[in-house]
This record gives sequence, structure tokens and C-alpha cells, in this order.
Amino acid sequence: MDVSVTDTPMDQLAEALGAEMEAVNALIRERMASRHAPRIPEVTAHLVEAGGKRLRPMLTLAAARLCGYGGPYHVHLAATVEFIHTATLLHDDVVDESSQRRGRPTANLLWDNKSSVLVGDYLLARAFQLMTETGVMRVLEILSNASAVISEGEVLQLTAARDLSTDEDIYLQVIRGKTAALFSAATEVGAVIAGAPPERVQALFDYGDALGIAFQIADDLLDYGGTTAAIGKNTGDDFRERKLTLPVIKAIALATPEERSFWQRTIERGDQQEGDLAKALEIMARHGTLAASRDDALHWADRARQALKPLPDHPLRPILSDLADFVVARLS
Amino acid sequence: MDVSVTDTPMDQLAEALGAEMEAVNALIRERMASRHAPRIPEVTAHLVEAGGKRLRPMLTLAAARLCGYGGPYHVHLAATVEFIHTATLLHDDVVDESSQRRGRPTANLLWDNKSSVLVGDYLLARAFQLMTETGVMRVLEILSNASAVISEGEVLQLTAARDLSTDEDIYLQVIRGKTAALFSAATEVGAVIAGAPPERVQALFDYGDALGIAFQIADDLLDYGGTTAAIGKNTGDDFRERKLTLPVIKAIALATPEERSFWQRTIERGDQQEGDLAKALEIMARHGTLAASRDDALHWADRARQALKPLPDHPLRPILSDLADFVVARLS
Repeated sequence: MDVSVTDTPMDQLAEALGAEMEAVNALIRERMASRHAPRIPEVTAHLVEAGGKRLRPMLTLAAARLCGYGGPYHVHLAATVEFIHTATLLHDDVVDESSQRRGRPTANLLWDNKSSVLVGDYLLARAFQLMTETGVMRVLEILSNASAVISEGEVLQLTAARDLSTDEDIYLQVIRGKTAALFSAATEVGAVIAGAPPERVQALFDYGDALGIAFQIADDLLDYGGTTAAIGKNTGDDFRERKLTLPVIKAIALATPEERSFWQRTIERGDQQEGDLAKALEIMARHGTLAASRDDALHWADRARQALKPLPDHPLRPILSDLADFVVARLS
Repeated sequence: MDVSVTDTPMDQLAEALGAEMEAVNALIRERMASRHAPRIPEVTAHLVEAGGKRLRPMLTLAAARLCGYGGPYHVHLAATVEFIHTATLLHDDVVDESSQRRGRPTANLLWDNKSSVLVGDYLLARAFQLMTETGVMRVLEILSNASAVISEGEVLQLTAARDLSTDEDIYLQVIRGKTAALFSAATEVGAVIAGAPPERVQALFDYGDALGIAFQIADDLLDYGGTTAAIGKNTGDDFRERKLTLPVIKAIALATPEERSFWQRTIERGDQQEGDLAKALEIMARHGTLAASRDDALHWADRARQALKPLPDHPLRPILSDLADFVVARLS
């Protein structure tokens, strides 16, 4: 592995796993094709080829390699994980009416809701075909359980949205579902396919879980401009969509009666006016909830690093450790 | 089996499989529950408890029993098949903006698009969990393949919709995907779980395939009032949604230049006026395409009956044979 120390952990992973990631990409291209329905690769190419960072499949490959796997099926599982992720994005696009993802128009603006739902379903089916090809029952259990947890998390987010009684426990449950469940499944199946002993499987599950939580808290914080409380061009999407994320939940818990009215008007009733986002940021800065959320993200990143301890000494281990810092480094 | 000869084949199946269907229903109720997201059973109860005929799970149970199965897992597979079917209905509701299903408001009017997509995803994940519990890899292959074919068929229907060049081959491909793929998977997995020899597995696959095709042609014909060409209160939904189904495809193939303009205006451009449905029915009656479609449905019902020949003599066999007539008897 010819890795420069100035590269990010993502770059280092990509370099270390280069040949296998090429195999994953080839498999993805092969399996997203449809003989009968040419619209399918049109829609999926948009997402699958859009320069996604491929973090999740790299986690699967890295976990398998770290556990000494020499077979071919970590590539199938990495493609499976990316297909599940892409299907989730497609279905999210339908439901959230979000207009931008990765800086491009979302699939449902270029095509329509129908295509997004059905092509997402197609990718899910392809994911289940791919994992079935591994012939390892435990892997199927893990990934079908993860799929159930992901959709439960999304439904829970739906019922929790706009509800000011949503607390940090519910938030954790939501982000475990919508993000961490696939991260932890990605790392766990890598260990399982390698035939790793239970404590290593558990270690890689714990790593993926904590990494996913840190990642999602950071993402939610970045939606408010990170900890600088400065309004950038992509700031405040969650606020406008009335999503209750960690810094807002913490601010609501500390709200004065006047602030509580503000949150009720803007989040619960959705009556938002110009200047409300700035006011929300000001309230959160005053209570220090952006900084407190960042501390939580750092805490989970640390848990991710600690989880790696039972794993064998391997060149990929320090990269995964650095990756935990990297997903929250975006915040400083 | 205490079966009255005046019952329909559906009733006879329900009686013959009564105890097992109760086990299926109990498993469905158990697995559609969600500890974390109480909205899920709210949405699914609407569809799962709505008095659906449970045709697909009965096919799985019947196939397994016909092949002498004595184990418990046909119940899991029957629930799997019903979950996949229900997920498809939920996702169809989102995409088709249909306003009625089984005479009740569709899920997306009572709840919203978001819930329909995400709860459908949850049921798909639950389906994959259930089938994984059987521990039989071949069953997982069949059902994940069927899921891919189903979504391909739905996407193909999308691209074929409103396109007057859609021919009978494409139509067959679409209905194989949207309907027959789950029927044939339902019967095939019943045979596979029973450890049936290849020719019986093939026979039950062929039966499900032909039954599903006959069923869907009949359904599409009933949307135009069957062969009576009389306008009832539910007539013409497909026409209004500009779906190309068999009687219309046959009529377009036989169209005079003036009729072709009519189909271009109403189906291709969607410019529909009062009296257009009546005119469409009149054109189809003139060319005999409703009767010809009925003949096709009868032909597939006959193929379904013939497919049963290699199967052992068993009280369920004549019921399945009658069922093939029954799904098209709605047309006379």
C-alpha cells in the first residue's frame, strides 16, 4: 500500500482497496443494468456514478481484509451495501421532496416519483440477489435485519418530525436506523464473510455503529453550518423541513418560554418567516447546543476508535481509526 | 377436508388450508408490528387486514402440501409472499395516485406518500427476514429474483405507458413482471421447501406463471367491464390513466387511420373528453378485442390446468385446477 500521509483517510482507504473497489464498481454497473427496462440504469447511473464517496462499500471491504478474508464475496457484499444505500436515497428523494443531493438535481426532478420508487425497489431486489449469491445465511440475516431497522428508523423520523417532545433518545434511535444500521451491517458482514471470531465481529459492528452515529450527528450539525453558526448557501434545509435534529432538540430542552413559542411556531406549525433561521442559530449559539452536539459527535468518534482495539494489527486499522476522526473533523 | 361442492375454488382452498392460513395470519400480524415505529402497523393493518383474498399465500401453502411437505416453513414463505404483495400495493399507491383499492381509500390518502414508501420498504425487509429464517438458499434465490422481475415489470410498464408502439409481447412481459412473477414464485417456493423433484417444481412454477397471466388479463379486461362493453361505476380507470392493456393494444393494431388518431389523442396525448371511454369501448367491441382478450385469458387458464398434470394425485389438485377456471370465470 503506497499511501501518502497527507491524504485523507478516505483517500487512503480508496488507495488501499483500489483493485477491489474497481471490482465493486464493475459489479454495480453489471447488476444495475436491466435487459427489460432501460430506464433503470438511466436513473441509477445518476446516483451510482455521481461520484459518491463509496464509504459504505469500502467499510465492508476493509472489514473483510482486516479479518484476513481471501475470498471473492466481500465484493458482492460491498455492492449489496451500496445498492441498499442508493435505494434509500431514491426513496428518500420521493418522500422528502428534497431538491438537491450531492449538488445535482435529485432523481425525482429529472425523472418522476414513480421511477424513484420503482427503481429503488429494483436496487433492493438486486441487493438481495447479490447477498444470496454469497451463500452465507448469517450475512443474509444481518442485512435483512439492517433493512428493517433502516425503514423503521425512517418511519420513526416521520412520526417524530415536527413533534417538540422528540428527545435525544428518540433522535439516537432515528439516526441509528437511518444511518448507523447500514454502517454497522457493512462492517459486520465483512467480518462474518471472513469467518472472524465473535469478538472481532462484535468489534467491527461496534465500530460501524459508532462511526455511523458520529457521521450523522456531524451531518446534521453541518446543516446548520457546523459550529460557526454562519449562514452558508446550504444552511438550514433541516430547519425549513422542520426536522428535529440534535442541536435543535438540545435547544428546545433549554428553551425559555419565549424561545419555546419560537420553536412551536417555526417547527411545530411550520410558520416560518425571513430571519427565522438566523434567530434559530442565535438561540442555539446562546445555549451552546451546536458545540454540545459537536462534543457528542466527537464522543462517538472516540467510541468508534476504541472499538477497533480487539482487532488484529493490520495496515487498515490505523486508517479506520483516522476515519472516525475524519467524519467529525468536518466540524472544526 | 369438509368441502361443499358449491363453494368457489377460493373458498375450497381457504377451507382446506384453514389452520395453516390462521398460522400465516398470526405470523403476518406478529411481523408487521414495530416496537419503534407504531405508525407501521397502522398503515399495514389497512391493507393486510382489509379482507384481501390471500390468494398468493394460499398458493404457497397448497403447493407445499401438494408436494407432501410436513414442516413449518411454508407458513413463513406464505407470509413472505403476502408481505411482498402488500409492499407492491403500497408502492403502487404512491406512484399511480389511484384513489381506491378494494373499495377503501388507499393508504396514501389516509396517510401520505412518505408512509406508503417507507412502510412498503419495511414490509420488504420483513419479507426478506422471514424467508431467511427458512434457511433454504434456493428459496431466497427464487424470491429475490422474483422481486427484481416485479420491479423491472413495473418500470417497463412505466416506459411502455402512453406509447402506442407497445405490443402484445411487451404487454406479456409487463404482466409477467407485475403479476405472474409473484404467483409463480409463490407456487415454486412451496414445491422447493417440500423438497419436490425438479419436474414438480417446474410444474408448479408453470402453473403459477400461467395462472398469474390469466388473472391479470382478466383484471385488465374487467377494467373495461369485461366482455359486455357496458360502462359500470369502476369502468375505465386504465383508460383514464392511459395504460395500454391487452384489449386496447389489440384495438390499436387493428385501427383505421381515424381510430388511430383517437388513440393518439386519448392515450398518447391524454386529451380525453366526455364520451371518449364509450367510444373506446365501441371501437374495441367493433374489432372484437374484448372477446379476443378473453380468449387469451382462457388459453392461459387452460395452460395453468395442463401444467398440473405431472403433480401427484391429491385433493388439492382439482381445486387448483378449478381455480384456473375461476380467475377467468369473472369474465363471462
